[in-house]
Amino acid sequence: MITDDTFPVEPWQVREKTLDLDILAQSESVFALSNGHIGMRGNLDEGEPHGLPGTYLNSFFEIRPLPYAEAGYGYPEEGQTLVDVTNGKILRLLVDDEPFDVRYGQLEHHERVLDFRAGTLRRDVRWRSPAGRRIALTTTRLVSLAHRGVAAIEYVVEAVDEFTRVTVQSELVANEDQPETSQDPRAAAILTKPLQPVSHDSDELRAVLIHETRYSELMTAAAMDHDIEVPGRVEKNTISREDLARTTVICGLQPGQKLRIVKYLSYGWSSLRSRPALADQVAGALDGARYTGWQGLLDAQRQYLDHFWDGADVEVEGDPEIQQAVRFGLFHVLQTSARAERRAIPGKGLTGTGYDGHAFWDTEGFVLPVLTYTQPNAAADALRWRASTLDLARQRARELDLEGAAFPWRTIRGQECSAYWPAGTAAWHVNADIAAAFERYRIVTGDESLEADCGLQVLIETARLWLSLGHHDRHGAWHLDGVTGPDEYTAVVRDNVFTNLMAAHNLRVAADACNRHSEASRALGVTTEEIAAWRDAADTVNVPFDQGLGVHQQCEGFTTFKEWEFTDETQFPLLLHESYVRLYPAQVIKQADLILAMHWRSHSFTAEQKARNVDYYEPRMVRDSSLSACTQAVLCAEVGHLELAHAYAYEAAAIDLRDLHHNTKDGLHMASLAGAWIALVAGFGGLRDDDGVPELDPQLPEEIVRLRFRLRWKGLRLIVDVTHDEVRYTVEYNGDDTVDDALTIRHAGADLTLTVGHTRAVPLQPRRALLPAPSQPPGCSPQRRRG
Amino acid sequence: MITDDTFPVEPWQVREKTLDLDILAQSESVFALSNGHIGMRGNLDEGEPHGLPGTYLNSFFEIRPLPYAEAGYGYPEEGQTLVDVTNGKILRLLVDDEPFDVRYGQLEHHERVLDFRAGTLRRDVRWRSPAGRRIALTTTRLVSLAHRGVAAIEYVVEAVDEFTRVTVQSELVANEDQPETSQDPRAAAILTKPLQPVSHDSDELRAVLIHETRYSELMTAAAMDHDIEVPGRVEKNTISREDLARTTVICGLQPGQKLRIVKYLSYGWSSLRSRPALADQVAGALDGARYTGWQGLLDAQRQYLDHFWDGADVEVEGDPEIQQAVRFGLFHVLQTSARAERRAIPGKGLTGTGYDGHAFWDTEGFVLPVLTYTQPNAAADALRWRASTLDLARQRARELDLEGAAFPWRTIRGQECSAYWPAGTAAWHVNADIAAAFERYRIVTGDESLEADCGLQVLIETARLWLSLGHHDRHGAWHLDGVTGPDEYTAVVRDNVFTNLMAAHNLRVAADACNRHSEASRALGVTTEEIAAWRDAADTVNVPFDQGLGVHQQCEGFTTFKEWEFTDETQFPLLLHESYVRLYPAQVIKQADLILAMHWRSHSFTAEQKARNVDYYEPRMVRDSSLSACTQAVLCAEVGHLELAHAYAYEAAAIDLRDLHHNTKDGLHMASLAGAWIALVAGFGGLRDDDGVPELDPQLPEEIVRLRFRLRWKGLRLIVDVTHDEVRYTVEYNGDDTVDDALTIRHAGADLTLTVGHTRAVPLQPRRALLPAPSQPPGCSPQRRRG
Repeated sequence: MITDDTFPVEPWQVREKTLDLDILAQSESVFALSNGHIGMRGNLDEGEPHGLPGTYLNSFFEIRPLPYAEAGYGYPEEGQTLVDVTNGKILRLLVDDEPFDVRYGQLEHHERVLDFRAGTLRRDVRWRSPAGRRIALTTTRLVSLAHRGVAAIEYVVEAVDEFTRVTVQSELVANEDQPETSQDPRAAAILTKPLQPVSHDSDELRAVLIHETRYSELMTAAAMDHDIEVPGRVEKNTISREDLARTTVICGLQPGQKLRIVKYLSYGWSSLRSRPALADQVAGALDGARYTGWQGLLDAQRQYLDHFWDGADVEVEGDPEIQQAVRFGLFHVLQTSARAERRAIPGKGLTGTGYDGHAFWDTEGFVLPVLTYTQPNAAADALRWRASTLDLARQRARELDLEGAAFPWRTIRGQECSAYWPAGTAAWHVNADIAAAFERYRIVTGDESLEADCGLQVLIETARLWLSLGHHDRHGAWHLDGVTGPDEYTAVVRDNVFTNLMAAHNLRVAADACNRHSEASRALGVTTEEIAAWRDAADTVNVPFDQGLGVHQQCEGFTTFKEWEFTDETQFPLLLHESYVRLYPAQVIKQADLILAMHWRSHSFTAEQKARNVDYYEPRMVRDSSLSACTQAVLCAEVGHLELAHAYAYEAAAIDLRDLHHNTKDGLHMASLAGAWIALVAGFGGLRDDDGVPELDPQLPEEIVRLRFRLRWKGLRLIVDVTHDEVRYTVEYNGDDTVDDALTIRHAGADLTLTVGHTRAVPLQPRRALLPAPSQPPGCSPQRRRG
Repeated sequence: MITDDTFPVEPWQVREKTLDLDILAQSESVFALSNGHIGMRGNLDEGEPHGLPGTYLNSFFEIRPLPYAEAGYGYPEEGQTLVDVTNGKILRLLVDDEPFDVRYGQLEHHERVLDFRAGTLRRDVRWRSPAGRRIALTTTRLVSLAHRGVAAIEYVVEAVDEFTRVTVQSELVANEDQPETSQDPRAAAILTKPLQPVSHDSDELRAVLIHETRYSELMTAAAMDHDIEVPGRVEKNTISREDLARTTVICGLQPGQKLRIVKYLSYGWSSLRSRPALADQVAGALDGARYTGWQGLLDAQRQYLDHFWDGADVEVEGDPEIQQAVRFGLFHVLQTSARAERRAIPGKGLTGTGYDGHAFWDTEGFVLPVLTYTQPNAAADALRWRASTLDLARQRARELDLEGAAFPWRTIRGQECSAYWPAGTAAWHVNADIAAAFERYRIVTGDESLEADCGLQVLIETARLWLSLGHHDRHGAWHLDGVTGPDEYTAVVRDNVFTNLMAAHNLRVAADACNRHSEASRALGVTTEEIAAWRDAADTVNVPFDQGLGVHQQCEGFTTFKEWEFTDETQFPLLLHESYVRLYPAQVIKQADLILAMHWRSHSFTAEQKARNVDYYEPRMVRDSSLSACTQAVLCAEVGHLELAHAYAYEAAAIDLRDLHHNTKDGLHMASLAGAWIALVAGFGGLRDDDGVPELDPQLPEEIVRLRFRLRWKGLRLIVDVTHDEVRYTVEYNGDDTVDDALTIRHAGADLTLTVGHTRAVPLQPRRALLPAPSQPPGCSPQRRRG
C-alpha cells in the first residue's frame, strides 16, 4: 500500500526513499517516463523483480477477438490492445559472479527520484552482494521530449570497498513474459508473445530488432547504441537473436573507480513503411541521439520543461501535498501528450495496459481543457487525431443506421472497441465532448485554422448524428432516448441532462461554424434547412426538472428512482459487488454527471439550481470513477462548500500518488491528474469558458493561502494570483506582441478589462453557501484537508 | 423452403410425399418423436444425409463457459447446453454390396408420415440401387409415451424383383459429428464429442454403451436389443466399442420375402447413480420393452393418445390447415411434456438444439396453460420441476442483493444461463409468470396439493423478490424500474405495464395463499405486516397511461418514443439488422407485451382500452418473436377483428409446418404450437380465467364454421361447441363423479350455470369492433385466410 511515507512531500519531484516490493507495480506507473510517442514504465534497470514490464509506442496495438456468449448486431468483433514492445530499458549487472538483484544480498540504499523539471528518473543504489562486494549504482533515465523517437539511460556503477569485476549486459528484449491480469474487468487483457520477429542485426555496441504484430500487421523497430567510459581494460561485444540483443561490457574496478555507460535507444513503428525504411529511421534517430550526447539530451529536456512550466505551473501555498500532486499531474499530462502528434491520448497515457491502452472521452473532456490553456499545440494535435478517424466514425454511424459520425467509446486506432454497448455505444455524449473540445480550442486559442482544416467536418457530422438520434414528441420537446450519460451506474435512459445540453451545444456550435465557413459547409451538403433543424432541436431540447424538489433530474424520472440502501457492509467500487440490473434503476451515481453538466454548461443553470442540485446529488455519488472528484471539487467550490471542494481537489490530485483507486499498478489516471489542475483552476479559480469569454471568480479554502496559475488566451498570457483577500490579474504577451493588448475577462460576473504589462488587483466576491455542506454516501466522504 | 405442397393438409397426420433434401433439417424437427424424457429428431434411419443428427435426454446437458469481452458482477459464468446423446436410431442397409443412401441410386418412392393418433413416424421407401436392385423398405419409429425409457423401431425390408442379399447394421453411435452452427445468435452452440466413454458391452443381439459428460458429470446409458424375423438363413452378430455398438444381420431375400427387425432401445441418465445401477436400469427397460413387444408398444401408444385426444382435441371446421396444425401442435406439446416428470420443458422441446435446449418463460406462459386444461398432471410435473429449483433461485436472488427467489431467464437445470442481462435477468416477469402458472393450475384443476407441497414457497419467495425490486415514489406510486417486459426490443425500462400487472398479481396471489396456509406461511417467516406490504404494493402499482392518446404506455413514456422508420428495405428479424441501441428507445415492438398483459390480466383493462390499445400497438409490432402471433390473435378476436385474428391464429399454428421463422431446423417452437390452441380457445372461444372462473365468449371468423374444444375444470369436463349462431356447452364428469355436478361459467360476461350431462345452447354475443382493423408495419401483415 502507498502510504504518506512512501513519497515525501516535495514541490518538484516524487522521491521514493526505499524500495518496497509490495508497491512495485504502482511505483512503476508513478515513475513512468513518456513523451507521448514512447512510454516506459518505471521498471528496475535490471528487469526484475517487476510488477508489470512495460514499454509502449503510442497506437502500436494488436487486434484481439471480442467474444460474446450472446452476440448482437453492431457489436464490435475486434478489440485493440496496447502491446508491450521491445524492452530497451534493461541493463543487467553482475558483481563478480553474482547478479545484482534487489531481492538478494543487502540493499543498503535505494532511492528513486522523478524530477518534474529535469524530466528524468534517477536511481541511487548501494548494494552489497551475497559474497560481500559493495557497489554504488546511479542510473538516470529519460524519454526525450525534444527527440520524439529517442530515450536514453546513463548507467554508472562504482566499486566501493575493493577491486570488483563488473559485467553489464545491456539488452533489447522482445516478447517479455507478462504477469497474469486480475479478474477485475477494468484491468486489461494482456497478450502473450505478440511480436513476430522480422529481422535482427548487431554491430559492436549497436543492435536493432524489428518485429511485426500478427493481426494488426504493424512493424516496430527498436535500436540501441552505447557510449562506454571506464578506466582500464574493458571487453565489449554485442550479439542479436530474434527476440534479444545484448551488449556485454566487462571490466575491473578499483574502489572509487566507475564504469559509465550511456545507452541510447530509438524506437519507431509503422503500418506502411518497409523494413529497411524503418531500420534506417531508428538508425538515424540513434545517430542523432549520440551526436546530441547525454548532456545534450539532458539540456534539451530541461529546456523543454522550463518552457512548459513557465506557461503551465500552478503554485499552491498552504497545501504542499496538493502542490506536489498538481505538478506531478501536469508533468504526466505533458508526458502523455507532448509528442503524441496525431495519435490518441489514452486514458492511462503510456504508463500501463489498463483499459487495454484505449482512449476515451477522458481525452477531450479532461485532458484537453488543461492542454488548451497550457500547451495548446498538443491539444490541436490530439484533435487532429480525432478528426483523422472521422471516416471510421462515419462508417460506424452507417452500421448503426444513423446519419453523420459516431465516434468510438473506446479505441486506439479509431474503431469502436467497446464490447458492452449500454456503457459504450449508448454513451453518445463522447461525440458532443469532442465537438466541445474543438470549440473550446478555437475560443481559447483564437486559432481558426483547426476548424477550417478538420474541425468543421467533425462539427457537422456530430450534429447530424444528434439529429438522427433525437426526435420531437408530439408536444414539440426534443428527446434523446436510450442514452447513457457520464454516470455508468444509470444507463440507457431518457433525456440525460448532461447529454441533452452537450448535444444542444454541439448542434449550435455546428450551426455557427457552418455560418463561419459557409462555402465549405455547403460543399459538405449542409443547407440552411439543415442548420435550422439543428437550432430547432437545440432550442427545444428537454431538460428534466423535478418541480417538487426544485432540482434537475439527472435523467427523466431520476429523482423518483429507488434510493440505494447503503449499509456498513457496502463495498466499493459497487460495480465489483453489485449487478448492473440493480444499479441502473437506483439513485446511485458512479461519477459526476448532472454535476459535470453544471460545470461544462455552466450558464444553463441558475446559482440556486446549482446549489440545490449539489445538495441533492452529493449524497448519491459514490465516486467509483476517477473522473468524478475533480468535477465535484469545481461545483462544490462554486456553490460555496470550499472545504469540501478542497478535499475533492486533493482526492483528484492524489489519485495515483496515494493509489486511491487501488489500480495505479495498471497505469496512471490521466483524466484525474488533469483534474487536479481543473479542480484548482476551475474550482478555486472559478474559470469558466462556456460563454466564450474567460470568466474567473476565485475563492480559496481556508488552508490554501495563495493560488497562482497561468492561462493562455488568444496569444496572451493571463496570470491569476489569488489570496484570501484579493486576486491580482496580470496580462502578458505570450511570444507574439502583435495581438490586441487588452483582454476583457469576467470577474465574479462583471466585465474587467486588463491590459498587457499591467497587474490589477480586485477584491474577491465573498462566497456564501445557500445550503449547508452536503453529506456523501457512507464510506464515500473525501478525506478532509483540515481538522 | 417448406411450401404448401410439402405436407398435404390432412386432419390427423403430417405426411411428406417426397424427400426434399433442402428441407431435411426442417423435416427432422417436424418429424421429431419424444415423450418428454427421450427426444429423437426425425433423422433418416440410415443416419445420413442429415441436417442435424439429434437424440436427446431431458436435462442431460454439458456445461460450457460463457465468455464476456467486458465482464460484470453477477453475470453467469457457466452455460448449459443440451447434448446429442448416443444415437440409437441408426439402421444402415446394404443391398448386395451397395449402401442404401437416398443420394445415390434411384429413389422411386419416399413417404414419411407422422401419425398423431398412432404416435409413430412411418416411412415407406422404394429404392433402386445403382446396380439396379430394387428394395421396399418400411420403417416405423416410436418413442413410448407409456414406457418412459423406451423407444423402438420396426424395420422391414423386402426384395422386389430378384434375389437380393441384404445386410442391416443396427447401431448405437456416440459422439456423432455435428454440423457447424450458423452465426445467428439464436442457433445453439454445439459441442463436439461431449461424451466420454465409461463402458461398453454386447451380447448376441444386444449392446449397451455408457458415457459421461466431462464437466457436468452426468452419466448416460443407451441400450439396444433386437427381434429378427426372416425366412431362411440369417447371420447375426453384435460388437461394441467405446463409441459404437453394432448388430449386423445378413440374409438373402427372394422377391417378396421380407426381413423384419424390431429394434428396442432404452435410455437412462443420472447425476447420482452408479454405472452398474444405470446399466441395470436400461437393461430392465429393454427387457420390459421386449416383453411388451412391438405390437404391445404400438397398442399402448395409441391408448395413451386416444385418452389424450379425448380430452384435448380441438375441432376446426372450415379451415383444414388450422385443423391439421393445431393437432400437430397439441401432439408436440404432449410429446414434450408427457413424461418430462419434474424436468424442464425446453423452448424447443427435445426436437433440436436451438436456444441450447433451454427452458424459458415459454413453459409457464404458453405451454402450461394448454396442459392445465388438457393434461393437468403434466402441468403439475412441470411446476414441480420449477419448485425443485427454488434453492438455486434463492441463491441467485442473494447474489443480486435481493430478497426471495429470482428464477432464471434461461436454463436446463435451474442455474441462470443468460449471458445478456438486459434481455435476461432484467426480464424479472418470468417470476410472476411462474407464480401465475401455479395459481392457474390451482384454480382450473381445483387441486390444492401442489400449492401445499411446493407452490406456497414459490409464491412467497417470488412475492418477496418483487417487494425488494420495487419501491414507492414520494407520491406513493409503486414502481418497477430497469425491467424488461416480454418485448425484447424495448428493454430496461420503467413500469412495463405487463410486468407491473403480473407482479401485482403475484403479490396478491401470494398474500391469498398465505392466508390459505397460515401455519405453513408463518413457518416460512411470513408475517401479516409482510402480507400487508405485498397488498399495498399491488394496490399502488403504477400503470402508465397516455391520457392524450387514450392508450396505455407499454412502459413509462413509450408513446412518446421515436417512431421506427420502416422502409421497403427493412429486413426482418430486425435484431439481425439493427442494433439494440437503436431498437430499445424506439416505438418498435418485437412481440406482444402490452397486448399480452391485456390477455393475461384481462380484467385490468376496459373494453374500450383494449380496442384502442390494439389499434395503437398493432402497427408497431413486427412479430420477430414466435411468442407473438397467438396473443395478437387472442386480442384481435376480443376487440372484434376476427379475420385478422384468424390470420394470426394460422401464423401461430403453422410456424413450423411452414417454417415461418426460418429456424424450424433448430427445433420446433413449442410455445407457438401451444399458441395455436390458445389462439383458437382463448381467441375464438374467448376463454379467460384471470377472474377465477371459466369465462367464455365465442365468436368465429367467417371461414371457420365450427369450433369444438374441451376443457377440464375442477374434475369436470366442459365441451364447447361453437358455430356462427350459437355455442353449445356440455359438462361431463371427467373420471371422478364425486365432484359437484354443476358448473357456473361466465358466458359473454353473464353467469351461466351448467349441469353435468346436459348441453345448453346459448346465442353468441355479436362482436362489433369499436375501431377499424389496424394495419401492421410494412412487411409484417399476417397472411390473410380469405381473399
